[in-house]
Amino acid sequence: MFSTLRGSSRAFSRACSARVAPRIQQQRDIHNTLRGSAVAAANVAVDSVSSYEPFFPKEPTSPSVQTEVPGPKSKVAIAALDEVFDTRSLNMICDYNNSIGNYVSDHDHNLFLDVYAQIASIPLGYNNPALMNVAMSQEMVTTLINRPALGNFPPASWTETLKSGILAVAPKGLNQVFTGMSGSDANECAYKAAFMYHRRRERGEGVEFTEEELSSAMNNAKPGSPDLAIMSFRKGFHGRLFGSLSTTRSKPIHKMDIPSFKWPQARFPQLKYPLEEFAAENAAEEAECLNDVENLIKTWHCPVSAVVVEPIQSEGGDFHASPKFFQGLRDITSKHNVLLIVDEVQTGVGATGKFWAHDHWNLATPPDIVTFSKKAQTAGYYFGNSMLRPTLPYRQFNTWMGDPSRVLLFNTIIKEISRLNLVQHTADTGAYIYNGLEQLSKKYPGEINNLRGKGQGTYIAWDSPQRDAFLKKMKTVGVNIGGCGESAVRLRPMLVFQQHHADILLESIEKVIKG
Amino acid sequence: MFSTLRGSSRAFSRACSARVAPRIQQQRDIHNTLRGSAVAAANVAVDSVSSYEPFFPKEPTSPSVQTEVPGPKSKVAIAALDEVFDTRSLNMICDYNNSIGNYVSDHDHNLFLDVYAQIASIPLGYNNPALMNVAMSQEMVTTLINRPALGNFPPASWTETLKSGILAVAPKGLNQVFTGMSGSDANECAYKAAFMYHRRRERGEGVEFTEEELSSAMNNAKPGSPDLAIMSFRKGFHGRLFGSLSTTRSKPIHKMDIPSFKWPQARFPQLKYPLEEFAAENAAEEAECLNDVENLIKTWHCPVSAVVVEPIQSEGGDFHASPKFFQGLRDITSKHNVLLIVDEVQTGVGATGKFWAHDHWNLATPPDIVTFSKKAQTAGYYFGNSMLRPTLPYRQFNTWMGDPSRVLLFNTIIKEISRLNLVQHTADTGAYIYNGLEQLSKKYPGEINNLRGKGQGTYIAWDSPQRDAFLKKMKTVGVNIGGCGESAVRLRPMLVFQQHHADILLESIEKVIKG
Repeated sequence: MFSTLRGSSRAFSRACSARVAPRIQQQRDIHNTLRGSAVAAANVAVDSVSSYEPFFPKEPTSPSVQTEVPGPKSKVAIAALDEVFDTRSLNMICDYNNSIGNYVSDHDHNLFLDVYAQIASIPLGYNNPALMNVAMSQEMVTTLINRPALGNFPPASWTETLKSGILAVAPKGLNQVFTGMSGSDANECAYKAAFMYHRRRERGEGVEFTEEELSSAMNNAKPGSPDLAIMSFRKGFHGRLFGSLSTTRSKPIHKMDIPSFKWPQARFPQLKYPLEEFAAENAAEEAECLNDVENLIKTWHCPVSAVVVEPIQSEGGDFHASPKFFQGLRDITSKHNVLLIVDEVQTGVGATGKFWAHDHWNLATPPDIVTFSKKAQTAGYYFGNSMLRPTLPYRQFNTWMGDPSRVLLFNTIIKEISRLNLVQHTADTGAYIYNGLEQLSKKYPGEINNLRGKGQGTYIAWDSPQRDAFLKKMKTVGVNIGGCGESAVRLRPMLVFQQHHADILLESIEKVIKG
Repeated sequence: MFSTLRGSSRAFSRACSARVAPRIQQQRDIHNTLRGSAVAAANVAVDSVSSYEPFFPKEPTSPSVQTEVPGPKSKVAIAALDEVFDTRSLNMICDYNNSIGNYVSDHDHNLFLDVYAQIASIPLGYNNPALMNVAMSQEMVTTLINRPALGNFPPASWTETLKSGILAVAPKGLNQVFTGMSGSDANECAYKAAFMYHRRRERGEGVEFTEEELSSAMNNAKPGSPDLAIMSFRKGFHGRLFGSLSTTRSKPIHKMDIPSFKWPQARFPQLKYPLEEFAAENAAEEAECLNDVENLIKTWHCPVSAVVVEPIQSEGGDFHASPKFFQGLRDITSKHNVLLIVDEVQTGVGATGKFWAHDHWNLATPPDIVTFSKKAQTAGYYFGNSMLRPTLPYRQFNTWMGDPSRVLLFNTIIKEISRLNLVQHTADTGAYIYNGLEQLSKKYPGEINNLRGKGQGTYIAWDSPQRDAFLKKMKTVGVNIGGCGESAVRLRPMLVFQQHHADILLESIEKVIKG
């Protein structure tokens, strides 16, 4: 498989550049390409999606399920793994050597069209040749085996690595980054930055810590360790470490038996679908939720330092809100000197048809902090206000502060997204899928409910009357698909998902619905 | 440099196997070799350290500092980096391509003997050929570019990867692992496991969550989100995320302005040196600290689910306690049904002359949980009691659950440690260094105070009257060395540190002391 893929690297490049060259100038600035992809697309002739050549010429043309799932080899492997590692959340044992592009292989060599993509974290397909090239590079080898403590001993190349990659796609208005390990880690570091900023403003610039603050902090007591809060939203998900878990409100199973901070949760809009039919009700719902936010800021037992929000609540059930809601949230937080942290861990890096989902909002002033992980294959938070750098060194610090080898992968992902115009591609593919699902929802009333994600790329979901059974049956017809919340089916295909994959997906859904 | 190093890979292997072959059977079981290295060493003729050939034949023979530090190129690079990344904690800009073995290069090509090793996290030297080989392997490439959500979609090889590596060196009595991303992450996941276990025992086996628990957990309220505590020790360090930071008590700068859980801290023994002279006082001090632990368990405002302790308090100032203290701690925690979590993030993987520092304690029953990171280049926690697997799937879970590419590196590190008998080597080298420092401390009274770490491999520290100035001057003579706590100099050389390096280190220390 390995040599086959190396061979296909050239095919991949040829196929892609033949297709893309007329549409994108090779030298176009990555930043503008990615952030302005919708604008760019409007200025050029966009081929219809159907004319696309496959990104992975050697991908199978359809799924192939030859055994029961899990198959006999997988069953043996699961039993062996369970002796040393909890397998109760296991979905399938994979064979990554046998996976390619949008197809994931299980241990019995069944091949599934993958619209779950490692919980929305694979951007460019399995065994992507461009990623393979960077993984085989001398730079990657050196970076892997000489892991630096980045805050103390960065390599000289770190500046250029950040500027040419992570920071080239920084959300508008944010020009600095703190690198981390995972989405939870990124969010918690962002919360810490917000708390330090809060106290900095209260304390006044240049005012040193008091003896009382220093000694009380060591005792986990006020005033050094103050009562301050991060507000989140009902059904929000922001991670599972102690601070992030206190803001996570998706399911009890995540939170049960774990001590938490007494932080507030506001209502998140519960919109009714189709949106066109419920415009007035939905607007009222959003206004009420914004009132809830403002009331909680004013009345909570301790000051709220920041509000954290997902552009689309993902683990909680794929709940959307309108740009107007988020504009209102920005206004309220600004008015009350509360930071706005946008958690783009799942929504970021192209899947919504914009590089960052909050690009859909057209905010007058940017969020204060934006966190990222998953499709970035690394993690961290962006910020712009230099006051969010803490007053002293070592206040925001840890041994590794991220993993530069993963950052090299993200930088290649960014270049490939730009080269292949994958953000616009995903917007187009998403529109095609949404249209197909809308037709199915009419054809099979009650089977595809509350279809949502129109105009949000492939970030599409719906409620299914028998969700868990539906997900399981989809596997028998060769599609690996995930759920979220209590009844939602969520699509999280990769950015290299194309119309011919969408056709297979839609046919498979119909097949399962028909039973 | 790259091709030079590839060439030196063969030299490295030849040099090492020529030296080691008579002492270690090639096929010796890794587990026994590593865990029983002291015993193994006693049964064979150990060459004196001085006869060792260099592990890195192409290493420089001495440091080389040609510019002021930081030099002109470094200064330009620091200014450029500071525009996008906080550089106030920066120690030096490194050139990892120009670093080799125990020598780290800065951006001006000054070469420093490195006894800090990326905050104690590099085990086998810069550009180690064995790590280079695995980093260039097909398995690494596939693993890097197809990052799995391990809890859902592990590869079939995951079982063997765990068994042949991470679990082959599992602490005695612990046969399962939860893999994570960093030391903080590992500790917090261990705390979560302890809280779930605590409530499982209280609730009774097979008893389901009540409606009240489920709904209150979503509100961050009792009983679903209970008041339970992790006890730590004064001067302990366990990380910087919200749960781990609540157990960290090393310095106010880590904790200031961050909300915390109201968890207890017990006194950690403050031993007097030399130990032989203060045996009775130190025994009394340890007994008092154990009393403090037991009193806090009995009287804290909420139940204590676990005690977390470092075998040697590292960031806090390199504070040691005797095996008897830790045996007492095991007894008290067992008696009160409190879990004992041993944080081996910094002490683990060989530096103390045992693979795990707590191997020095000869406990009758093992710790309940042991966490690891740093020299492992990955992270996680070990456990043995199957009841520490939560009652339901998805209670201990996250998207990535570690990074298999880093696990491959750890497995190679484990094999190299075994092949080269590096744990015993480190015990020997440490004894040599300790002896040299003891002589210096007598020769220069008041300069090397409270020398500690005898019999603890290279995990050696002392208090310096002008610590920060001392660290800085060491750089001018070509040694990169770190501090901890308020006045301690700590040695954290790699496991490939040899007697000829120790001689340079001791000479450099004397040079700086003489001024």
